[in-house]
Amino acid sequence: MKRIAIINGPNLNLLGTREPDKYGTETLDTIRDRILGLASELGVQCAFFQSNVEGELVTAIQQAGALDGIILNAGAYTHTSVAIRDAVAAIATPVVEVHLSNVMAREEFRHISMISAVCKGVISGFGAESYLLALRALCENV
Amino acid sequence: MKRIAIINGPNLNLLGTREPDKYGTETLDTIRDRILGLASELGVQCAFFQSNVEGELVTAIQQAGALDGIILNAGAYTHTSVAIRDAVAAIATPVVEVHLSNVMAREEFRHISMISAVCKGVISGFGAESYLLALRALCENV
Amino acid sequence: MKRIAIINGPNLNLLGTREPDKYGTETLDTIRDRILGLASELGVQCAFFQSNVEGELVTAIQQAGALDGIILNAGAYTHTSVAIRDAVAAIATPVVEVHLSNVMAREEFRHISMISAVCKGVISGFGAESYLLALRALCENV
Amino acid sequence: MKRIAIINGPNLNLLGTREPDKYGTETLDTIRDRILGLASELGVQCAFFQSNVEGELVTAIQQAGALDGIILNAGAYTHTSVAIRDAVAAIATPVVEVHLSNVMAREEFRHISMISAVCKGVISGFGAESYLLALRALCENV
Amino acid sequence: MKRIAIINGPNLNLLGTREPDKYGTETLDTIRDRILGLASELGVQCAFFQSNVEGELVTAIQQAGALDGIILNAGAYTHTSVAIRDAVAAIATPVVEVHLSNVMAREEFRHISMISAVCKGVISGFGAESYLLALRALCENV
Amino acid sequence: MKRIAIINGPNLNLLGTREPDKYGTETLDTIRDRILGLASELGVQCAFFQSNVEGELVTAIQQAGALDGIILNAGAYTHTSVAIRDAVAAIATPVVEVHLSNVMAREEFRHISMISAVCKGVISGFGAESYLLALRALCENV
Amino acid sequence: MKRIAIINGPNLNLLGTREPDKYGTETLDTIRDRILGLASELGVQCAFFQSNVEGELVTAIQQAGALDGIILNAGAYTHTSVAIRDAVAAIATPVVEVHLSNVMAREEFRHISMISAVCKGVISGFGAESYLLALRALCENV
Amino acid sequence: MKRIAIINGPNLNLLGTREPDKYGTETLDTIRDRILGLASELGVQCAFFQSNVEGELVTAIQQAGALDGIILNAGAYTHTSVAIRDAVAAIATPVVEVHLSNVMAREEFRHISMISAVCKGVISGFGAESYLLALRALCENV
Amino acid sequence: MKRIAIINGPNLNLLGTREPDKYGTETLDTIRDRILGLASELGVQCAFFQSNVEGELVTAIQQAGALDGIILNAGAYTHTSVAIRDAVAAIATPVVEVHLSNVMAREEFRHISMISAVCKGVISGFGAESYLLALRALCENV
Amino acid sequence: MKRIAIINGPNLNLLGTREPDKYGTETLDTIRDRILGLASELGVQCAFFQSNVEGELVTAIQQAGALDGIILNAGAYTHTSVAIRDAVAAIATPVVEVHLSNVMAREEFRHISMISAVCKGVISGFGAESYLLALRALCENV
Amino acid sequence: MKRIAIINGPNLNLLGTREPDKYGTETLDTIRDRILGLASELGVQCAFFQSNVEGELVTAIQQAGALDGIILNAGAYTHTSVAIRDAVAAIATPVVEVHLSNVMAREEFRHISMISAVCKGVISGFGAESYLLALRALCENV
Amino acid sequence: MKRIAIINGPNLNLLGTREPDKYGTETLDTIRDRILGLASELGVQCAFFQSNVEGELVTAIQQAGALDGIILNAGAYTHTSVAIRDAVAAIATPVVEVHLSNVMAREEFRHISMISAVCKGVISGFGAESYLLALRALCENV
Repeated sequence: MKRIAIINGPNLNLLGTREPDKYGTETLDTIRDRILGLASELGVQCAFFQSNVEGELVTAIQQAGALDGIILNAGAYTHTSVAIRDAVAAIATPVVEVHLSNVMAREEFRHISMISAVCKGVISGFGAESYLLALRALCENV
Repeated sequence: MKRIAIINGPNLNLLGTREPDKYGTETLDTIRDRILGLASELGVQCAFFQSNVEGELVTAIQQAGALDGIILNAGAYTHTSVAIRDAVAAIATPVVEVHLSNVMAREEFRHISMISAVCKGVISGFGAESYLLALRALCENV
Repeated sequence: MKRIAIINGPNLNLLGTREPDKYGTETLDTIRDRILGLASELGVQCAFFQSNVEGELVTAIQQAGALDGIILNAGAYTHTSVAIRDAVAAIATPVVEVHLSNVMAREEFRHISMISAVCKGVISGFGAESYLLALRALCENV
Repeated sequence: MKRIAIINGPNLNLLGTREPDKYGTETLDTIRDRILGLASELGVQCAFFQSNVEGELVTAIQQAGALDGIILNAGAYTHTSVAIRDAVAAIATPVVEVHLSNVMAREEFRHISMISAVCKGVISGFGAESYLLALRALCENV
Repeated sequence: MKRIAIINGPNLNLLGTREPDKYGTETLDTIRDRILGLASELGVQCAFFQSNVEGELVTAIQQAGALDGIILNAGAYTHTSVAIRDAVAAIATPVVEVHLSNVMAREEFRHISMISAVCKGVISGFGAESYLLALRALCENV
Repeated sequence: MKRIAIINGPNLNLLGTREPDKYGTETLDTIRDRILGLASELGVQCAFFQSNVEGELVTAIQQAGALDGIILNAGAYTHTSVAIRDAVAAIATPVVEVHLSNVMAREEFRHISMISAVCKGVISGFGAESYLLALRALCENV
Repeated sequence: MKRIAIINGPNLNLLGTREPDKYGTETLDTIRDRILGLASELGVQCAFFQSNVEGELVTAIQQAGALDGIILNAGAYTHTSVAIRDAVAAIATPVVEVHLSNVMAREEFRHISMISAVCKGVISGFGAESYLLALRALCENV
Repeated sequence: MKRIAIINGPNLNLLGTREPDKYGTETLDTIRDRILGLASELGVQCAFFQSNVEGELVTAIQQAGALDGIILNAGAYTHTSVAIRDAVAAIATPVVEVHLSNVMAREEFRHISMISAVCKGVISGFGAESYLLALRALCENV
Repeated sequence: MKRIAIINGPNLNLLGTREPDKYGTETLDTIRDRILGLASELGVQCAFFQSNVEGELVTAIQQAGALDGIILNAGAYTHTSVAIRDAVAAIATPVVEVHLSNVMAREEFRHISMISAVCKGVISGFGAESYLLALRALCENV
Repeated sequence: MKRIAIINGPNLNLLGTREPDKYGTETLDTIRDRILGLASELGVQCAFFQSNVEGELVTAIQQAGALDGIILNAGAYTHTSVAIRDAVAAIATPVVEVHLSNVMAREEFRHISMISAVCKGVISGFGAESYLLALRALCENV
Repeated sequence: MKRIAIINGPNLNLLGTREPDKYGTETLDTIRDRILGLASELGVQCAFFQSNVEGELVTAIQQAGALDGIILNAGAYTHTSVAIRDAVAAIATPVVEVHLSNVMAREEFRHISMISAVCKGVISGFGAESYLLALRALCENV
Repeated sequence: MKRIAIINGPNLNLLGTREPDKYGTETLDTIRDRILGLASELGVQCAFFQSNVEGELVTAIQQAGALDGIILNAGAYTHTSVAIRDAVAAIATPVVEVHLSNVMAREEFRHISMISAVCKGVISGFGAESYLLALRALCENV
């Protein structure tokens, strides 16, 4: 049975209350439930982690290197973190970068991703659905 | 029954023979068959279009404005075409930008997308699977 | 009797339905009628051409090199096309660049015009009226 | 009866003697006469102002905010003046930016206009005719 | 017997009449005759293609992938076309980029070539002679 | 008794009528009254100056060099004026830069201040309150 | 009774010993006492937080979203942290950005603030007094 | 007898008191006396003008167009003024740009001169001596 | 007896398993042993610290300010961390920046170091040997 | 009989041993022999010069100004040398810039040529054949 | 008796024959004679040096560090040479940078001087007269 | 017995007298003695070379390609020389880049090294000690 880590970065713990026009009204818990629903359907096991601390995300990615895939929404750190990029590059496990919003339709500093280049692929703009598509992508590709 | 257009840009007609290490060995026809398979499963109708001519892609997008969704792999025009961006912005139909390869892991001039900002979302890096995920995304979101 | 070509670029065929807050509700046909009205008043003959294909615009400009003036709304190609610039530079006929919207009040990538430098002059921001002013300009100047 | 202000910026008082290959041989007075001729034909009243001082142009624009339209040739300040931009933005009266020469065909620092974005539209490259076209544009649009 | 395609881009059909100080007074037909003369001497077969449409050049390059060499003067598209670059990269046939004028001695936007990096080599500045040198280069190198 | 100059730049004379969503509905006179109220409370004397002319602001700053402090809202000249910067640097009197709006939340060209580096400090974003805070700052610091 | 959080970022715990020519000789404790003095005078309650960890500052801002105002000296993270910006944007509580030194008079990389645009306003350059002015600003504005 | 105008820009009226380490302790009057001394020796007549207002400098340059030479220290406007550049270009009289300090050894924004390109030559870094050298240069060259 | 801190940043805990072609096969423990060996030979005492969290590195540097020298491999934070730079600048203890790989031979974003300017010196490219050289450098220089 | 100088810049003396995958295995002597072979066939006389010193190349170009043509491979100086550019511009003799490798397919700093703009033309990417093509070009063009 | 070195860089040995419209028709020998004439009048001794080799100019400047002043026309190396800048900075002797032409009126890459910042001052645009003015400047200033 | 070349670039011959605050008071000869001392201890043989001429450094590096290691302080050429970079890349011998001062703490144009990427490693900021550390590094690594 495949094991997938879903790792969420800063401010994603506020989901549902934070700028709902950009990020939707679903909370991280609701999204977790939807992911678990699809995971059960696809026969994969999911582990969830959220932190506002860049270095804790680095550690989480390092540890998830033992699993079969990672869905990573690095939030704001997407645009600046060489450390997270290095963590992703340091492990062999495939990582799918996801975003709730279409980052390319927002401020210019969000158009740069430090981590895309070392990920398997990118899925952005579909709200919570982005995670589900990433889960399918990992099940098909890995 | 939803109708989805799959529009492919320049050089995608060479798929399968062109730089297989970047784009895989599947031809555009094989991908078409896989899309049709999933479409049939999801109960949607698909129309395919490919052209090497930027303006013909503009026209195709304009015409697909009458359908329920568009999966757009604008290929090389992704990085330079204001005309295709304007066509996407001019229609109400949601457009999902897809790429076979992870464009962010390639040359720097491919890191810029002129069209992402006016699309619903972006899926890149999963080979032919990118199209299938986009099809699911359009079925869920539209 | 002077002969003037009115050449329109990509997506201008959608005029009237496309983003009416930016481009107004007049269709290209209505604008044509208004131009013909003024042309008749000024005693000039007008030929109309629209294409979404950059290269067809190049050809149209080359052919209009035999007329007395060109009103050119190159649309999205304004910002990127060296080929259209070269076509304008290659002919002796004066070309007036027009835009319906005030391009300088829109996205930054629309602030650059590849073709202004080789045109006689620029008129932008007056909606369909931009074409009529250009027609007057060509009649006065040529 | 509509009232239109024609506001001219630095060095335009030299017109006719200054670099005639760029700006033509007409003086500002001749242009004034031509504008008054058309104004009389169109039934509008015109007020003229010229200054080499950026801040006096700011004041003139503020005061012309009580009229029905402004034709503004800010000359060299076009490319650098945030103050003039703010004055234009601060009033409700529509402003048409005009230039005698085709500024886009000259030095690169003249390609940037600080004021276009807050004007109604731009007309450049037609010599004194630029003012006449602007007058027509204001009569049609306002 | 080697087969070489000579592919010419936008506005090169105007050769001889277009800005003769930059491009010389020879027409494309005269150049063709000179190329055929040398081809006959070198014992190679030549096929000629010209289009103003970027996508048609893409298609022509794809098809010439079956021949032994391509001489490509992409004209204005040289500086902007990722699509043509991708077409050149997609085929195994060696491509020599040629220019009539010395592009590096002209406007700055012509100093960038999107296609040089995927070509065999570049020859520019020798007028029609550039094609003849390219033909020799392909015969020696291929 | 300390003497403080309050120097206001271009378009601030329009305060109250100009873009009230950005600058509030208070006029410069109302602000003056509020400043005088606090000045009286703090036991300092205030002199007010406003001009749309950059050079007159330079002169006013030079003359205020004889006082104990300057509150400077250079308006649009904040972003471009080396002359005002030099005037501030040329005097020993401490200068506090103030802005009504939060300039960093507006257009990018307003993010640059030519004068901050030679001022004592910066206060922006609190509407008329910015002046009152600056007055307190000068009383505490000088 | 209003509640205000004072949140201090990296290295501010060293205050008093660290580069006293730039940051003064007051320690963070002395500043705290001065703030408490003014808070008591203004009748507001203050909570203090300091951390060297970006993510802990994110969490502290999220939690202070329940209070009536935040005084934020994000220190070095001011110039790079999208995560802190997002936290500020995610809450409704007004945030005032403060700096002890005049950041605009220091190295160029300190001239950029990632957080100003989402704050209520900015106060910098007045040493410990910056905090007191911010406290007054929040009491007046909130 | 040759007539030379010496035109000084913003803040040069402060000379002698302003940042003496950069600009020396001589006042503008002392410099004037030294210039007059040399002028008398060389047999030329000198007219002096100083203003803090950019537009008044423009006017002064226009008027000095009737003399035989101009020594121009545009001060801070050197780095930003297109209007002064245009005034210099608009007259036939040779203009020598002078600076007291070596501007290239100061802040980066002072390394750009908007006016050098249209001046006869540049002399900077020799304090008051810069003016005397310029006077000699004009006498030799004109 | 001198005391030296060796502080290692993000992902260095993976050393030996992470991209061995770039970072070698030695683990952080092996390197520690080699450092201790040389330290014993040189008669200095060493303290080791590793963290993936930027702020914890800041704290560690602050605390090591009481020792005689610091060897700092800030890993990915080298390229982005103003906070670590400030911590280094805030203490009097000399800091030597080290890197295992030759960062200048890798991706362009690794060519920028935010911390070099405030360090004593830099040693990079010698694998684990970089630490040993740094230890010698600190013993010689401090 | 035409006389042609072949001038080679830094490190070209290492040809054959230096990075043979980029520059081939032919030595400069072998290339010389091939050039002499063709020269004899074309009836021209050739003089060879190589130096690692930029200034000696300048002198060599100056002296070759007395001949009928120059083939210049300035090697690394191509990308940085204003002095060589000036030497080429200072003589009337036509200069052909050649490169063994396709410089546009290498590091970005090699994409800039300081000398192309003042040369007759450029030939690059054909190995030793580049020199032979240049020789033909000079014989045809001069 | 003061001793002054006049050091000339690359291609200045061609003076008189090289692009006479830019550099005049005087040879370096004629200029030398004019300098010697003025030197005799001013009672100073002059030593002349010219080289096309950057490093020889470095050595010459080092050696002239024993004299009382240097007039340096570094020619093309002005724009690129850190080595010459370092040589100028390494000696205590004042150096005056001179140019025959007005470099700011030429190509953009000539607008940057690597050496101005470490020179006493700059004189450019007066042809051979630039040297004479520099000689006077050194006699007055040293 | 290993043989190491120590190659020093422009102005390093002035060491000891040149800007002693930046480069220390040791002369190149003293450094040579210290290197020889350590070399004798480590059992390696050293050859020294210094030149102000870029091309002579190129030649020296080429010749040192026969030895076992190179310590290269290219001085000012570090920041601009593609020729030296190419020489380093052209030989198989490992090269260690050294600097006396911490170049990253100096002017911005010194932050770029053209040669680091092709060197084994970099050691900077330790004065003469930088050479000794480099010698050790070469003995350990080679």
